[in-house]
Amino acid sequence: MPFSPDSIKAVVFDVFGTVVDWRTSIISEGRALGKRKGIEADWEAFADAWRGKYQPSMDRVRKGERPWTKLDDLHRESLVELLKEFKIYALSEDEIEDFNRAWHRLDPWPDSVEGLTRLKSKYVIATLSNGNVALLLNMAKRAGLPWDAILGAEPARSYKPTPESYLRTAEFLGLPATQVMLCAAHNDDLLPARSHGYSTAFVRRPDEYGPKQKKDLEAEHDFDVIGESIIEIAEKLNC
Amino acid sequence: MPFSPDSIKAVVFDVFGTVVDWRTSIISEGRALGKRKGIEADWEAFADAWRGKYQPSMDRVRKGERPWTKLDDLHRESLVELLKEFKIYALSEDEIEDFNRAWHRLDPWPDSVEGLTRLKSKYVIATLSNGNVALLLNMAKRAGLPWDAILGAEPARSYKPTPESYLRTAEFLGLPATQVMLCAAHNDDLLPARSHGYSTAFVRRPDEYGPKQKKDLEAEHDFDVIGESIIEIAEKLNC
Repeated sequence: MPFSPDSIKAVVFDVFGTVVDWRTSIISEGRALGKRKGIEADWEAFADAWRGKYQPSMDRVRKGERPWTKLDDLHRESLVELLKEFKIYALSEDEIEDFNRAWHRLDPWPDSVEGLTRLKSKYVIATLSNGNVALLLNMAKRAGLPWDAILGAEPARSYKPTPESYLRTAEFLGLPATQVMLCAAHNDDLLPARSHGYSTAFVRRPDEYGPKQKKDLEAEHDFDVIGESIIEIAEKLNC
Repeated sequence: MPFSPDSIKAVVFDVFGTVVDWRTSIISEGRALGKRKGIEADWEAFADAWRGKYQPSMDRVRKGERPWTKLDDLHRESLVELLKEFKIYALSEDEIEDFNRAWHRLDPWPDSVEGLTRLKSKYVIATLSNGNVALLLNMAKRAGLPWDAILGAEPARSYKPTPESYLRTAEFLGLPATQVMLCAAHNDDLLPARSHGYSTAFVRRPDEYGPKQKKDLEAEHDFDVIGESIIEIAEKLNC
């Protein structure tokens, strides 16, 4: 059956990479901090290494090797490890805490606010992110992301791509999964969502991981909607 | 220490009675349904009886006598009981389901949207309601309530006034309870919130329970802010 935009009532979004450009933002926060504190470091490598610890840190929670831990705390543990690895010793506790909150201050891609605003006129729009609520909320206030609701791993108490992360989010929305669409820039997020009944929208973000990006350069499956921006996704959903 | 509007970062709201006029809305939905189906009933008494089952139905969940059950389901169980008590047999399953969703279609008090919009310019504003997420989300979309986040009993998995309902909501916001204010029209909601560190705003809704209202006609404690409307609360918080 061909996909119809009228078959869905909510569009939920992956956030890191899909809605916001985490890499440019973290590099820029690192450089500014380095300048303030006189720290010489390869901030591109630092940003990539920080993000590199993202999946492994959630894996321990997913496997039940540690109790539920929100992403702010995982980010901070990774940051403390990385500061040692990069031999950066000049930061106070407050400065480490503030640098960790750089993830609350990520800038959106240029099309995100307009695309979301258009989708919001027709659908419920919400996050379905591994970021914790406070992170996503502070990000939204600063960047003007007009979410109807902040959902995802923390309210569901389960990190994507577990079945619970998708199914509990649909339950919070009060909708069968078949009436929810996930929009993401990542094939390995959309594929499990689809297996649980979600409709799927792939937005191409070929610069998310910088000039050397190898993954997710294209949609690798026949997702319901594919676009170069959230604005294009909105257009294809007749918004 | 006198209360300072700068000491808080988020204002969370009780919703039923504080932000929306549930009684007028439910009576009006009942009357419209009665007219469509040719049902004669005292819809004022029906609305009051439905709301009368609200606290007892949550009590069984609070006491652990039954597992977590969202408010939509409690509302529906109460509705099915009441239809029998009122000898109303003319409704199909779909009509019962639609009537139950009248709680998703409650109208705001006339000051709510403006008051919330003003508060949103300075603070994070969110729900802290016993309503489930879908109920609050659908209500917000319909009524134009500009929440930054939909929080409360369902994400916290605990019905007010349990300690968990207040403490987990502050945790979702990433704030100490001392930086969160609860705005409510109910003394028995604000008092426990205050005992857990929240600041408090009492908004007077002397018509919530209709012309015979006896409770909550006035703030019975020295709450931090007291107003006749959410607009007045916003003004007193310098918004």
